[in-house]
Amino acid sequence: MNHLADLVAALPAGRVLTDPDVAGAYARDQTFLPPGTPLCAVVAESRDDVVTTLRWATEHRVPVVPRGAGTGLAGGATAVEGCVMLSMIRMTAVRELSPADEIAVVEPGVITADLDRAARAHGLMYAPDPSSYEISTIGGNLATNAGGLRCVKYGVTRDSVLGLEVVLPDGRVLATGRRTMKGVTGYDLTGLFVGSEGTLGVITAATLRLRRAPETPPATFAAEFPSLRAAGDAVAAIIAAGCRPSLLELMDRNTLKAIDDWKNIGLEPGVRAMLIGQSDDGVPGAAERMAALCEENGATFVAATSSPDEAEELIGVRRLAYQAKERLGTCLVEDVCVPRSALPVMISEIEAAAERHGALISTVAHAGDGNLHPVFIFERGLAEPPPHVWAAADDVFRAALRLGGTLTGEHGVGVLKRRWLDLERGEVSGDVQRGIKNVFDPLGIMNPGKAI
Amino acid sequence: MNHLADLVAALPAGRVLTDPDVAGAYARDQTFLPPGTPLCAVVAESRDDVVTTLRWATEHRVPVVPRGAGTGLAGGATAVEGCVMLSMIRMTAVRELSPADEIAVVEPGVITADLDRAARAHGLMYAPDPSSYEISTIGGNLATNAGGLRCVKYGVTRDSVLGLEVVLPDGRVLATGRRTMKGVTGYDLTGLFVGSEGTLGVITAATLRLRRAPETPPATFAAEFPSLRAAGDAVAAIIAAGCRPSLLELMDRNTLKAIDDWKNIGLEPGVRAMLIGQSDDGVPGAAERMAALCEENGATFVAATSSPDEAEELIGVRRLAYQAKERLGTCLVEDVCVPRSALPVMISEIEAAAERHGALISTVAHAGDGNLHPVFIFERGLAEPPPHVWAAADDVFRAALRLGGTLTGEHGVGVLKRRWLDLERGEVSGDVQRGIKNVFDPLGIMNPGKAI
Repeated sequence: MNHLADLVAALPAGRVLTDPDVAGAYARDQTFLPPGTPLCAVVAESRDDVVTTLRWATEHRVPVVPRGAGTGLAGGATAVEGCVMLSMIRMTAVRELSPADEIAVVEPGVITADLDRAARAHGLMYAPDPSSYEISTIGGNLATNAGGLRCVKYGVTRDSVLGLEVVLPDGRVLATGRRTMKGVTGYDLTGLFVGSEGTLGVITAATLRLRRAPETPPATFAAEFPSLRAAGDAVAAIIAAGCRPSLLELMDRNTLKAIDDWKNIGLEPGVRAMLIGQSDDGVPGAAERMAALCEENGATFVAATSSPDEAEELIGVRRLAYQAKERLGTCLVEDVCVPRSALPVMISEIEAAAERHGALISTVAHAGDGNLHPVFIFERGLAEPPPHVWAAADDVFRAALRLGGTLTGEHGVGVLKRRWLDLERGEVSGDVQRGIKNVFDPLGIMNPGKAI
Repeated sequence: MNHLADLVAALPAGRVLTDPDVAGAYARDQTFLPPGTPLCAVVAESRDDVVTTLRWATEHRVPVVPRGAGTGLAGGATAVEGCVMLSMIRMTAVRELSPADEIAVVEPGVITADLDRAARAHGLMYAPDPSSYEISTIGGNLATNAGGLRCVKYGVTRDSVLGLEVVLPDGRVLATGRRTMKGVTGYDLTGLFVGSEGTLGVITAATLRLRRAPETPPATFAAEFPSLRAAGDAVAAIIAAGCRPSLLELMDRNTLKAIDDWKNIGLEPGVRAMLIGQSDDGVPGAAERMAALCEENGATFVAATSSPDEAEELIGVRRLAYQAKERLGTCLVEDVCVPRSALPVMISEIEAAAERHGALISTVAHAGDGNLHPVFIFERGLAEPPPHVWAAADDVFRAALRLGGTLTGEHGVGVLKRRWLDLERGEVSGDVQRGIKNVFDPLGIMNPGKAI
């Protein structure tokens, strides 16, 4: 452990946490995977701290697992045996916020919703809004290329990133991208780091694109359907009509039932799905137009409003979804994405998999993007999902791929999805990705065993 | 030349053009750089043709320069000595166009505007619209990550690409990306290929994102300004007001004068800049609102219209810009991009460089993106730009970098910008990019000497 003493000596006091219980608190994310035992945790406060830590890790061949708030759902930030858990949570500076250029330069520990609020003070917004955005960090969002509810209009995290500052495993500092809206000098290294789950280097700053915040509150609708197929048709009709929703969320019967059992929302027996949508374009009648398309496609109940309070009530139902499910057991939150037209078929496939394996699955979907979160609910107290849950998940993943979809829309591969990875990417892609990993991290110390 | 006989034998009849004059016709793009002499040209008609050609090239270590329509402005598709010019112009299939999923799968030889027209038949559009889009190909647009006039609202080519099929130099076929709107399985190889200027492999198909076409014709305005600073202020005001223009083009006095000398547009003596903009949001009064913001910022004349014919007249002035300049001499079309707030300063820098070196520069800008095209006009008949032009260009590039900008917003590095490349990207980035190049192209046969 002399190595560790070197690290403690090289960093300012208090940065290295060597007490096993303390370091252990940094060892897991929101997955139930049993983590390895970290050697220590380092809580970085500056780029220099990161450089020092990585140089030391390179010298001594110690694996490094970077982490933000630990809200990940795929195991990307779980400890590997003997690693340094490198927490970025204290690097919280907003280095710059330029309303004129509509950009912000931030450190990775900034909470996503905090950046959004800082931007709104200038009439701007930071668009990416993963469900965790009140507690997750920009750095974690970058590592997984996080999505969110507003993606359907504003795109994923990648679409809001212009440039990065990255510390490579050997301690060199790499600047990628630029401050400008456009630019094609050299390969797109920015895109390479976004979504790389900490396997190539550690992001210490990001130049992010802000957007004009809508001037009026969004118009909101909700609709209940007697079948998932009808709800899927309504989604297609809304997109085809050019409604440009800024949010379009689908909940299945199991989700609605879990919410109803908890909060008594008056769920009618025949309701099989609910769609909730918003438009922030400021076009009068936008919510009513989407609601009318739902009715044309078989909705049995619709409501539309421009009142923020009423909107909050409708959206509030969606916000309860995860908590309602957690009341029923331990949740494995999954994340497949299919071409939008395949959404109804994918939901049927999920239902069939649930029945086939006797699994309880309840699904919410970012419907406008074809991104589904089937939540597998199982008995509390188990260390990991039981075999019938994995068997159902396996069916769901294979169905998504068969429908032209992907294993993960916005959560990342982490550890959880690695065993399915080669079904999607093929051999050549795997070779190329390992080659790229080797360019940045020839010793394989950056978050080994994750993502690729 | 036995090697060449092998290639001729391996490909279907007619694919290999060995006559030096015929092959030479494929040797250059729209730059005036003297190209090398190609060994031959191959006009591929299928992915198999590309695989055969690259396998042969790998076996015999022959450089390969892929090309589309040859409309590039940075020399990316100019021949290197003894290379195969690999033309993709005959791979023109639209393999799929799905209105439900809003995607198209196309081969690289498809003309960009043709895809846009095919999409519009379904109420959709293909958003990227480089000025060359009636003659340039999707493959060429992908290679340079082409921009265009609509970028200000819809982003660059990268923002419309979901996945690629690529033949690697050793003949292996790589599939990148996906058909879905979101996805984070593995590193972003799609982004890596877009803008890589043919240095990593040859794109043989692309899955592209289409968008809903606006339902009403765009609303258009034009405004004349007594100073560039005033026009720059108007741009800032339009963006800050959340107008979301779908086009926002700036022309300087030299550009207007060239157009006036040719077509007599009645240019007033005091006019130093013109701004032309459009909104396709369908919001009533959108053009009038932008025009009013121009007036508030000092415009001496404004016009706004929703009539397609009148719009065509206003936009027509912008369309004449390049041809008007070509009447005056040979044009070096440059392509710097700066943060939007630096646009007026950058224009002043361009004017100062012109005066300092006695160069004639006339500038158009995609103003909403901060992307400027200073066009250096010099004496016809010269093989390449004279020293005073390069000296002025050097000043312009350095000024753009000083202002936080980039050497190229949408044309690429090609050959023309290589000597300035290290000023922008720094040593670590150069190392990493060469490392990535080596993963895909260890023999260095793909478009050597270009881009990185």
